[in-house]
Amino acid sequence: MEEKLMQKLGSGSLDFESYFSEKALAMKASEVRELLKLVETSDVISLAGGLPAPETFPVEKIKKIAQEVLTHHADKALQYGTTKGFTPLRLTLADWMEKRYGIPTSKVEIMMVAGSQQALDLIGRTFINPGDLVVMEGPTYLAAINAFKYYGPEFISIPMDHDGMRIDLLEEKLEELKRQGKRVKFVYTVSTFQNPMGVTMSVERRKRLVELAREYDFLIVEDSPYSELRYSGEPVPPIKHFDDEGRVIYLGTFSKILAPGFRLGWVAAHPHFIRKMEIAKQSIDLCANTLAQVIAWKYVEEGYLDEHIPKIIEFYKPRRDAMLEALEEYMPEGVEWTKPDGGMFIWVTLPEGIDTKLMMEKAVSKGVAYVPGEAFFVHRDVKNTMRLNFTYVPEEKIHEGIKRLAEVIDEEIKALKG
Amino acid sequence: MEEKLMQKLGSGSLDFESYFSEKALAMKASEVRELLKLVETSDVISLAGGLPAPETFPVEKIKKIAQEVLTHHADKALQYGTTKGFTPLRLTLADWMEKRYGIPTSKVEIMMVAGSQQALDLIGRTFINPGDLVVMEGPTYLAAINAFKYYGPEFISIPMDHDGMRIDLLEEKLEELKRQGKRVKFVYTVSTFQNPMGVTMSVERRKRLVELAREYDFLIVEDSPYSELRYSGEPVPPIKHFDDEGRVIYLGTFSKILAPGFRLGWVAAHPHFIRKMEIAKQSIDLCANTLAQVIAWKYVEEGYLDEHIPKIIEFYKPRRDAMLEALEEYMPEGVEWTKPDGGMFIWVTLPEGIDTKLMMEKAVSKGVAYVPGEAFFVHRDVKNTMRLNFTYVPEEKIHEGIKRLAEVIDEEIKALKG
Repeated sequence: MEEKLMQKLGSGSLDFESYFSEKALAMKASEVRELLKLVETSDVISLAGGLPAPETFPVEKIKKIAQEVLTHHADKALQYGTTKGFTPLRLTLADWMEKRYGIPTSKVEIMMVAGSQQALDLIGRTFINPGDLVVMEGPTYLAAINAFKYYGPEFISIPMDHDGMRIDLLEEKLEELKRQGKRVKFVYTVSTFQNPMGVTMSVERRKRLVELAREYDFLIVEDSPYSELRYSGEPVPPIKHFDDEGRVIYLGTFSKILAPGFRLGWVAAHPHFIRKMEIAKQSIDLCANTLAQVIAWKYVEEGYLDEHIPKIIEFYKPRRDAMLEALEEYMPEGVEWTKPDGGMFIWVTLPEGIDTKLMMEKAVSKGVAYVPGEAFFVHRDVKNTMRLNFTYVPEEKIHEGIKRLAEVIDEEIKALKG
Repeated sequence: MEEKLMQKLGSGSLDFESYFSEKALAMKASEVRELLKLVETSDVISLAGGLPAPETFPVEKIKKIAQEVLTHHADKALQYGTTKGFTPLRLTLADWMEKRYGIPTSKVEIMMVAGSQQALDLIGRTFINPGDLVVMEGPTYLAAINAFKYYGPEFISIPMDHDGMRIDLLEEKLEELKRQGKRVKFVYTVSTFQNPMGVTMSVERRKRLVELAREYDFLIVEDSPYSELRYSGEPVPPIKHFDDEGRVIYLGTFSKILAPGFRLGWVAAHPHFIRKMEIAKQSIDLCANTLAQVIAWKYVEEGYLDEHIPKIIEFYKPRRDAMLEALEEYMPEGVEWTKPDGGMFIWVTLPEGIDTKLMMEKAVSKGVAYVPGEAFFVHRDVKNTMRLNFTYVPEEKIHEGIKRLAEVIDEEIKALKG
């Protein structure tokens, strides 16, 4: 001990690693975030991000509401709030969800959180014991993997197709687990315009998933940040709409329909579940930021949200169309991609044998970036996919970016054959 | 399994508890928060809260800055930010801390968090392994106990006096632990105008604590939400000021010098520690709310903060004085209390044998509320203390509240003797 101390004093620096918890030592930075840091400093066309376009932020409305709120509600908007959130906002959101999604207000309680990312962490904390079985989509939302992983679950990955999670394969898996005496704790799904694939779970599968939850006794975590961003096709009710028992925990967010900087999302679930998550949140950050909550309340209450959603759609639709057109125009044979009716992402699958992570350097040198798909799979066992974002970059750049990307892929395919 | 399922369907309700993690089952709601809920619905004079007075919020300044920010920086203020926080704010805060506290900017990196409460959770996550020894003050900040407890430390409580933590007793304990081959992971202290006692650690003790940290190889978590609220006496440099090695992790917050509703605090620590806490924060909530960060940046950068602090002091000083005067005037013999130079709280000690938790009901029926001291001790082994808040209630009410409280205590003392 004394020796070690002297060593340290000698080197003039602490042995920083020696203080970290074991779990902290195992934490790694998000590869995607690290990647984006590199790309943002160059003049590469980045289709890698996941940011909404700032042009879609209702700045003038927010300015107006902020003035009103600070004039008439400053005592509430600047003070600590209750952990569950600002009650008028919670009630307004419940009404909005009833009207819009057919989820009866009597069936849910709402808790406000610091973005739906916080809800993922809270769900991990509230439900996951080390070794618990958690079903994820393959691929799934990267930051959900990281949020849950901290709590030590065993992940099961269920493949996706153009109608979302393969519920038939889920059922097979559940049956197999049942034979082994095992139970799944919950199934996590980004049900509509999924991140990263852009696909939407069909109504039939939603209903069947709820039936399976009852049959095999598990919960469903429905993460739905993109469902309002629909550019084509017919709206689909959330899974929560089909839930009579309270098995579905629904996550919503203002990040894509107001502004991500507000860090404001919500959990809509059975009051029993909300109560426990509320206690968990108390020691994490006391409450969500109240100024943002009071502004969001006015934004929904006065109808600005319903007014604004069509404007976001109008802004994004041409970008989605531009990307689909460019993919059609430039991509070589053997490349496949999803055709999302909404959201922010398109998922591209290259011929087997191409590793998109290895291809990344070449792409960046050609002036285009994407997110390699590997990190979206809990077992990192798929190498030939990538996620493209179409919301942040204007149409001309999307066109040019896809053209460059197609060239890189074409070379890879030729190298593969040759 | 089948039977259990049928039971549930029969009762029409899930067995909610069966889904929670073991740690979630052990979580309990903060007693203080539950208590406050009761009190807030009646016309009791509550000295129990911990809220800043809304009169101290710089509403006009915030309105002005919010307009500027939404006019000129909306793209940043409404967008996702980096996990570490908005760089101009981080740099401005580092300069402000150097000027005000003599902490060289070269020695610290700053990360923005969702209130310093989040920093406590992040510290638990980053540093505490189950069973790790963590030293707390006795009494200490209640929500720090809850935040750390989740991570399973073994708490050691070191008694306090009017000069803060008894560093001599800490040293004895450290020596004893060393003989047992044990090491403390960190010491947590609210160094200035402590919550709940209102006392400040003396300069001598601060220096000695840093020496001990080096000698016995532990870290120091210095939580300093109240240090700017000084109504008398001379400023004391933070413990971090005496830290050459990077052992001190300093927590600051805008909750008491701008507005708690912003949920904005910061961690100032060695870059090695910040880096790991940044990774931990990524999967918890991505980033702190950016609108609040950009407003806070302007608030500090343009000198409004330095302008505003004297106004808060001017508002609170008469309230502290009123409470000290009323205590002097009404309290029966045998009752002792701290005489804080700042902060928000006074700590009252009653004669041994009185249980302030049991006395609470009587006090509320007499129209006054306080927080029983028991919950502020990690081992809950002290029954005859209470915390009083003097910032939220106006002078006349403080006077009347203390008068009522003194009557209740007087009766208790008489009952004790008789």
